[in-house]
Amino acid sequence: MKSLGKTHWAGAEGHIPGWSHADSPELESHEALCILNTAEAPAHCRLTLYFTDREPAGPYKLEVGAQRTKHVRLNSLQEPEPVPRATDFAWALEADVPIVVQHTRLDSRQAANALMTAVPFSQD
Amino acid sequence: MKSLGKTHWAGAEGHIPGWSHADSPELESHEALCILNTAEAPAHCRLTLYFTDREPAGPYKLEVGAQRTKHVRLNSLQEPEPVPRATDFAWALEADVPIVVQHTRLDSRQAANALMTAVPFSQD
Amino acid sequence: MKSLGKTHWAGAEGHIPGWSHADSPELESHEALCILNTAEAPAHCRLTLYFTDREPAGPYKLEVGAQRTKHVRLNSLQEPEPVPRATDFAWALEADVPIVVQHTRLDSRQAANALMTAVPFSQD
Amino acid sequence: MKSLGKTHWAGAEGHIPGWSHADSPELESHEALCILNTAEAPAHCRLTLYFTDREPAGPYKLEVGAQRTKHVRLNSLQEPEPVPRATDFAWALEADVPIVVQHTRLDSRQAANALMTAVPFSQD
Repeated sequence: MKSLGKTHWAGAEGHIPGWSHADSPELESHEALCILNTAEAPAHCRLTLYFTDREPAGPYKLEVGAQRTKHVRLNSLQEPEPVPRATDFAWALEADVPIVVQHTRLDSRQAANALMTAVPFSQD
Repeated sequence: MKSLGKTHWAGAEGHIPGWSHADSPELESHEALCILNTAEAPAHCRLTLYFTDREPAGPYKLEVGAQRTKHVRLNSLQEPEPVPRATDFAWALEADVPIVVQHTRLDSRQAANALMTAVPFSQD
Repeated sequence: MKSLGKTHWAGAEGHIPGWSHADSPELESHEALCILNTAEAPAHCRLTLYFTDREPAGPYKLEVGAQRTKHVRLNSLQEPEPVPRATDFAWALEADVPIVVQHTRLDSRQAANALMTAVPFSQD
Repeated sequence: MKSLGKTHWAGAEGHIPGWSHADSPELESHEALCILNTAEAPAHCRLTLYFTDREPAGPYKLEVGAQRTKHVRLNSLQEPEPVPRATDFAWALEADVPIVVQHTRLDSRQAANALMTAVPFSQD
């Protein structure tokens, strides 16, 4: 299998729900950036977050091993700063090898959770 | 980070649900067009809405600052005319710099809300 | 606005849920193919359905006016044959002008409906 | 209709929910890879799964007949090994003819099921 993907990815829809009505930890409201690295070398990724009315945050540094995937909960990011809740944002990710990215939100603000996913825009 | 995206975006699935069963304002049924502008200059965007049996509406003028995102609730548009509820429509957006777009619907016509999102078609 | 889109579109995930638990007609389980024609001429579209273990069905002929959208409920197609319920299928659509397509499913097999949407694969 | 698609597809978001709260077998939590082969020849596909902290699994061999679709429940794969539940993974698929792919998850960990779908990244 040859190395798949693009080196730049971006998504315009980011918003971590402000609360959860979860009956288990894995059903907590969250957004995840899932990264697949099919290359023979590790992928060094830099994530930037964009907001409505302030300067961008980042870069958040993420590493994904050769032929590995990493599903990053945006809720968990701490450095250089946490991702604000209940706040509109967008994101861009660049890597030093081609990667494949997918973005998912689980919204459990109600007793019945809702899911959405998208394969973001990509370019080299 | 270089400027990301395309200058033309379009989506065929638009339909603002006709009612809401929301237990908070942010859970009101809505559609959102989320725009990311990673460029160093503001993005001037023109949105056109297409319908089943009438002439298109617009252009709706939207501006997104340099390195900013804007999440536009279509429910909120007023000029040149509001977006009709419970009506099939489609949309096209053009900008003077590359942008990244994502379209989301929250449907709260029932007590349990449903979510869907898509990265629309894009071209230069 | 220039004419947007591609002339060939295809989606691999088709399945009209076998029943509905709907409290209004618009919440009936269904799949919709939404077509946007931004061209100055009508779009003449031919839809083919593919199955697991039988020959393809179609073509279903669909016309979308110049600068109009049409949201086609697959449940409603009758000619040349209805779309079977609770059956896996896939689809391909070709048009004589560029179009933009989006595919949505509303699943109301339970009291709480679920939504999903995708922008299908496209090429010229 | 000419043959549509690409020969390589990949998705970064895989996770079969660890349990189900289903009131019918078809509502069991699952992920499906839906493959459409519009070519005149069968498609021979090889699926590889990628994980967070172990070597990839596969190839899983899948065949899709000429002008047929196959909706593969990842829960059902047994050879060369079952897909672990409640575990993050990603996937890549290559075929010897162009194919179109779509990935869907039905999450019924709660009484109200949630759906999400995406058209994965593709390249030749």
